[in-house]
Amino acid sequence: MDSYLIQVNGHGDHAPMLDVHLKNTGNTISPGKVKGRKPRWAVRASEMSKKTFNPVRAIVDSMKVEPNPKKAMISLSLGDPTVFGNLPTNDEVTRSVKEVLDSGQYNGYAPSVGYQSCREAVAAYYNCPEAPLKAQDVILTSGCSQAIELALAVLANPGQNILVPRPGFSLYKTLALSMGIEVKLYNLLPEKAWEIDLEHLESLVDEKTACLIVNNPSNPCGSVFSKSHLQEILAVASRQCVPILADEIYGDMVFADCKYEPIATLSTNVPILSCGGLAKRWLVPGWRMGWILIHDRRDIFGNEIRDGLVRLSQRILGPCTIVQGALERILHRTPPEFYHNTLSILKSNADLCYAALSAIPGLQPVRPAGAMYLMVEIEMEHFPEFENDVEFTERLISEQSVFCLPATCFEYPNFFRVVITVPEEMILEACSRIQEFCEMHYQGAEGAQDLECDK
Amino acid sequence: MDSYLIQVNGHGDHAPMLDVHLKNTGNTISPGKVKGRKPRWAVRASEMSKKTFNPVRAIVDSMKVEPNPKKAMISLSLGDPTVFGNLPTNDEVTRSVKEVLDSGQYNGYAPSVGYQSCREAVAAYYNCPEAPLKAQDVILTSGCSQAIELALAVLANPGQNILVPRPGFSLYKTLALSMGIEVKLYNLLPEKAWEIDLEHLESLVDEKTACLIVNNPSNPCGSVFSKSHLQEILAVASRQCVPILADEIYGDMVFADCKYEPIATLSTNVPILSCGGLAKRWLVPGWRMGWILIHDRRDIFGNEIRDGLVRLSQRILGPCTIVQGALERILHRTPPEFYHNTLSILKSNADLCYAALSAIPGLQPVRPAGAMYLMVEIEMEHFPEFENDVEFTERLISEQSVFCLPATCFEYPNFFRVVITVPEEMILEACSRIQEFCEMHYQGAEGAQDLECDK
Repeated sequence: MDSYLIQVNGHGDHAPMLDVHLKNTGNTISPGKVKGRKPRWAVRASEMSKKTFNPVRAIVDSMKVEPNPKKAMISLSLGDPTVFGNLPTNDEVTRSVKEVLDSGQYNGYAPSVGYQSCREAVAAYYNCPEAPLKAQDVILTSGCSQAIELALAVLANPGQNILVPRPGFSLYKTLALSMGIEVKLYNLLPEKAWEIDLEHLESLVDEKTACLIVNNPSNPCGSVFSKSHLQEILAVASRQCVPILADEIYGDMVFADCKYEPIATLSTNVPILSCGGLAKRWLVPGWRMGWILIHDRRDIFGNEIRDGLVRLSQRILGPCTIVQGALERILHRTPPEFYHNTLSILKSNADLCYAALSAIPGLQPVRPAGAMYLMVEIEMEHFPEFENDVEFTERLISEQSVFCLPATCFEYPNFFRVVITVPEEMILEACSRIQEFCEMHYQGAEGAQDLECDK
Repeated sequence: MDSYLIQVNGHGDHAPMLDVHLKNTGNTISPGKVKGRKPRWAVRASEMSKKTFNPVRAIVDSMKVEPNPKKAMISLSLGDPTVFGNLPTNDEVTRSVKEVLDSGQYNGYAPSVGYQSCREAVAAYYNCPEAPLKAQDVILTSGCSQAIELALAVLANPGQNILVPRPGFSLYKTLALSMGIEVKLYNLLPEKAWEIDLEHLESLVDEKTACLIVNNPSNPCGSVFSKSHLQEILAVASRQCVPILADEIYGDMVFADCKYEPIATLSTNVPILSCGGLAKRWLVPGWRMGWILIHDRRDIFGNEIRDGLVRLSQRILGPCTIVQGALERILHRTPPEFYHNTLSILKSNADLCYAALSAIPGLQPVRPAGAMYLMVEIEMEHFPEFENDVEFTERLISEQSVFCLPATCFEYPNFFRVVITVPEEMILEACSRIQEFCEMHYQGAEGAQDLECDK
């Protein structure tokens, strides 16, 4: 019995369900032809699992450096505002979930797209005259990551392509490549506060372009698009008939001197899937409460995309019900001061960090307007010791115990990203160490030329 | 600008990351050749979203029947033990999550495979000498559905096949087909308490078989495999070198006269991914807390499958952290009486239901030994009015307002599934209505022959 395989001839395992009488099939199997196969163990991971690749992990894991044992580690690398305890969520958020737990009413399965009442709550919260929303326009998801996954999965087939910002959040590429979708990177322009290079963007569109990802406010840039720039982006999408996947997880997280415009409020015809969630604004990224808002006022997505999203949601059945059940309370009860307080801390940290890094020879920070990040250009010609941003940030760890992500993680070499959610004293200490580091390694124009001549 | 598309010649959007100097690329774009494409809106849902198909939904949605307005609806269709409030979760379970909320320590991102301490807690809980487990053998997932999704996604490529029980839980097929994996159904034998037809099972294995799904205790059968039967299943897997995906979400949910054996405790060589979670035993299916236990004592999965699971988990970043944080407390504090109480209610309901349905002419229930279900054969020859189980259960709704899922939903026509988690008085009322219904429509041997002659 070890080395052959019984094959069944025409056994009806794909016969129409209603016609099969099954009870006795076990007895009717005939041995069929014997094959010469000798089974052996050879279990391989699927192609899809191999194609699922997180570049941040790969780059960070390859940075095998030890921090300087004489200095306490300061990590400015994680886009998680809860790490240092200085930005706790609001008590009303916690209380809402505890009330739901006490009720005992939210322990069962919700519909895979979320409870109707919770979808209504999200729709009501984001509804506005320019971009009306009803419950059926909301799909609740397991975090904004799943929102993006479902949005990509419904819009794009393998072999199609999507347009992704450079620099940009690495998950877009991770998800797309795992699904066999090609990624075309369009440029953001640091000298224009990270606005999209519209000409470049439009040049990338072809017949296989399934969607355009617009991330505003931006990770890793901390930039916020103006109304007029968003209108220009919409004009490209409209001209080229490309739907938009708007990653708006940092929506409303903009500093006081700036206004956040949900892109759907400016669109009359471009169909948009806007992805968001509780993670950043309510400071609970681990809770995995996300959503897709379907904006389709010209009925271009139609039922096909809506039904597709519903079907895809049935694979893993949506987010945790105790957070779902608390959603309406969380949206209504969180006091405005909570949001203001978070933003004033972020703005203050951003200003401190920008000022400190601007004063360092060889670095060019780009001033952020929202989200939780700041990008810093490394004038590599002044740091000839280092090959690139990865080496620069590696050495910053080993000498100064300061960890910033090299922007190669975001497909943008020669920059690094600073997370500004850490406590103020840590930002200041980190900036002072970065200054010491840069002063140590900076080479003026002359020094750089010397080095050039040595080659 | 409406009708043409600028194409970029050789613009380096796929150049190696470290070599690209990006800042000025916006200025270097040349118009390239103009194509005659006239863009128009044509957004189609992806093939994958169309292939994601839940047969239960499709069948139930097609049953367009109204319940009898004179009788209150009794639904015995949903595999959700929380629906009627008679099976609340334990207070310790709720309290554990509230403590986690109060701590404020579990709001941030966990590693995508779950917190190390929570993986340790699950490993310790299920660890035993025959099947040792460590933290690195545990992957936490968003419900058992995602556990099954990740297990399938790592083991099978499109074009391969998996072996799935018939009757069986529909999600296996939904997930497999959405990934382009073929499903081969092996028979369970109702006359042998739903044991696997081993000969049939083995006959289905071919070179493209990626895994064997074993669901024990079973949905929809309520059956529990004996130790010796599990050993026979393992012998097939071992002979044919096919890894096992064990769906053990109903693990430990067996009635007192029966013993549950995790299949991995009986295997010395077959590598097994065991999928489980809090949903059923702790009566919180909405919380979406699941796990994969990796059993690989011969190192056949090796690092490849482990790494694949880790990579796949990075797509949506694991389950809700406040439930993760409570996991250790939930596993340790839930009192044994809670589990016993649930099982004694289920056993009592199973006995009542089995006795009542056994007495009805034309029905043949199969006695369950665990889980939350009971399958009933309809002797269709005695109900010549009805084409099949779907028609039978449709009419049961319209006449008696009792809703049971036709087993066509589980690829097993001419049976229906009864959920036994509902309150006792509801089970009794439902059984009495089913009796009335059957008595109304039953045709003895003679009547059936008459009808035959009329044709």
